[in-house]
Amino acid sequence: MNELSKKLHSIDGVRLSAVSAGIKTAGKLDLVLFELCEGASVAGVYTQNAFCAAPVVLARKHSALHSPRYFLINSGNANAGTGESGMQAALQSCEALAKVGACDTEQVLPFSTGVIGKALPLEKIITALPQAFSQLNSDSWSDAAQGIMTTDTVPKAYSETFELAGKQVTITGIAKGAGMIKPNMATLLAYICTDAEIAGETLQALCQNAANLSFNRITVDGDTSTNDSCMLVASSQGELKYSDITKEQQQQFATALNKTFEILAQAIIKDAEGASKFVSILVEEGQDSAECLQLAYAIAESPLVKTALFASDPNWGRILAVVGRAGLKNLNISKVSIYLGDVCIVEGGGKSLSYTEAMGQAVMSEAEIVITVKLGRGSCSDKVWTCDLSYDYVKINAEYRT
Amino acid sequence: MNELSKKLHSIDGVRLSAVSAGIKTAGKLDLVLFELCEGASVAGVYTQNAFCAAPVVLARKHSALHSPRYFLINSGNANAGTGESGMQAALQSCEALAKVGACDTEQVLPFSTGVIGKALPLEKIITALPQAFSQLNSDSWSDAAQGIMTTDTVPKAYSETFELAGKQVTITGIAKGAGMIKPNMATLLAYICTDAEIAGETLQALCQNAANLSFNRITVDGDTSTNDSCMLVASSQGELKYSDITKEQQQQFATALNKTFEILAQAIIKDAEGASKFVSILVEEGQDSAECLQLAYAIAESPLVKTALFASDPNWGRILAVVGRAGLKNLNISKVSIYLGDVCIVEGGGKSLSYTEAMGQAVMSEAEIVITVKLGRGSCSDKVWTCDLSYDYVKINAEYRT
Repeated sequence: MNELSKKLHSIDGVRLSAVSAGIKTAGKLDLVLFELCEGASVAGVYTQNAFCAAPVVLARKHSALHSPRYFLINSGNANAGTGESGMQAALQSCEALAKVGACDTEQVLPFSTGVIGKALPLEKIITALPQAFSQLNSDSWSDAAQGIMTTDTVPKAYSETFELAGKQVTITGIAKGAGMIKPNMATLLAYICTDAEIAGETLQALCQNAANLSFNRITVDGDTSTNDSCMLVASSQGELKYSDITKEQQQQFATALNKTFEILAQAIIKDAEGASKFVSILVEEGQDSAECLQLAYAIAESPLVKTALFASDPNWGRILAVVGRAGLKNLNISKVSIYLGDVCIVEGGGKSLSYTEAMGQAVMSEAEIVITVKLGRGSCSDKVWTCDLSYDYVKINAEYRT
Repeated sequence: MNELSKKLHSIDGVRLSAVSAGIKTAGKLDLVLFELCEGASVAGVYTQNAFCAAPVVLARKHSALHSPRYFLINSGNANAGTGESGMQAALQSCEALAKVGACDTEQVLPFSTGVIGKALPLEKIITALPQAFSQLNSDSWSDAAQGIMTTDTVPKAYSETFELAGKQVTITGIAKGAGMIKPNMATLLAYICTDAEIAGETLQALCQNAANLSFNRITVDGDTSTNDSCMLVASSQGELKYSDITKEQQQQFATALNKTFEILAQAIIKDAEGASKFVSILVEEGQDSAECLQLAYAIAESPLVKTALFASDPNWGRILAVVGRAGLKNLNISKVSIYLGDVCIVEGGGKSLSYTEAMGQAVMSEAEIVITVKLGRGSCSDKVWTCDLSYDYVKINAEYRT
């Protein structure tokens, strides 16, 4: 977790607060408010789950109608699988905040995370809104990172300020998520803000690209949540105007933005339910990116590979078995090679002649492990990040509602 | 496990034996021999894993060249991921048996199950062959069922004898498998024999159809093995000649055969690694069988659904989340309904109004659970069988090689 920032820079034009509304255990922060200045641009990517939650439906709808002024986020209840009454509750929470904040209802975007299928505790949220509103300030990033957590054990936040084209620019973001993690276009709640001025369409493209390279490359259990949402805000209150800088400088900005997304996405894997290992799966020499990703996810989601990782057992036969069953058409296994770290374990259709159990054991004993598969039939590559499958994953998910 | 037979009828024309060759822990049965009479028909379906094991390659090749007389099966070592030297070892084991049994090498089909990637202990097998050969008899079905086990906790065997068209006919089968179970065209070692006379092509069709309705409808962990093989033998030494009976009687025979396959497949799930629940996933009212199966497998393989099943927790939101992320095109969630046993939990896009937690809890507390999803957009249906995900699954697979 070393990459996560201790110092979280505030973003001019963004104020926030986190309070305890009593949705989670008493005293825990569970209601987070973001206030965006007039003129801020907002981009977002949302879950592709067909049973997407009421707040996701509403956030998507509202952001298309009006320029957002508030994000209203609760943890402890997902307001998913709640049908029409869940939609009504989400809408009423937006109406209540619009009244407090003196804006249109459509300028409020709601977000929820927690147990699926329970009615949203609307009264608790409405009761806590004035307090949340009165506490808005520009330095509550750390509290906000706490307030959106569910089974997370650590808050996830990252911040960076740097000079670009002679202008100072700042990016600060928070994220949460520990289970039901295989985001498909976004992950379970990430909010990244910058003080740069970036127009809506450009911001959406930057957000989509950054999410694709980060939140859309992680999997804990292959289960895509109903509530995944990733929001990118450009407050335009800082010095940097994106449209005024050169292509090359725009690329530098994107690189910094992508880094923030990637660090937050990797932090989710490092804090994944029961995880004791951080595992990168690289698939190289593929025909196209799609087959590389297909295989990388198959390995990342194999319970047998994940339990071997948990046991630090170099049981590479399980990786080989996944490569063989992942559905890659016309795979010539004699051209496939598989590596644990830098150690070649499989080549020419079987165990590498140079491989010894001790070499594999040395790699598997590390806390961070890289598995590389070279398909030997093309020049495309892709990667995903995942974790192991431990007793604690079973424990956390067997006891989640008790 | 009540369906499994205590009494295993012998099959005229089939002799078998099981001995301890020292591949597994000393004293355990780990080498099984089947001897088939001249004129027996043999059908088989094998794993579709591209990294399929050496014995699978050889069994497929040999059965195409000659009429099989022997199955040579070892447990404790899969001879998979062993490259060219693994192929040589498998071939040499066939040659050794051909010498003992006075037949052609191509008349021996080899099968292996166990750890992937270790060299086959060829000397141990060759040394044990004469003893296995000398012990061949028609009553060793129970020992054979023991001898093919790996992490299985109970042997799996089923036998039935019945009259059809005035003729007595017998079917007896054994199977093994507890992990790396998502067969794709077959499962990790099943051998079913009948004394009926059935021509090769017909037998292959019967075998393929029966495997599709049984072994190809189960999943423990979504991991397709490198060694799956399912063999069907018709010794033709009994009274019934398949080509002499009516279409309707042929259908009755197929029904009895399918029942044997289904009982053995379900026994694998009931004995799956760490399993405490037997779960049927039915998907109905789909547009086609493919989308029903796609969703059924997505539910069956979801770690979050499986841990909720382990905890007997009616956390139906996780089922709903899988339905939404399973990739079914243009799904109208307002038409979807989900049932736990007979209890409707989801309809109209959210929780059923009639549902109470107590109703769900009552179903989830049972050892056998049926989950039904009705898609409301067609008339096709399909089903798979699976189990829960427990601490013991993690334990068994973390400690498998220690």
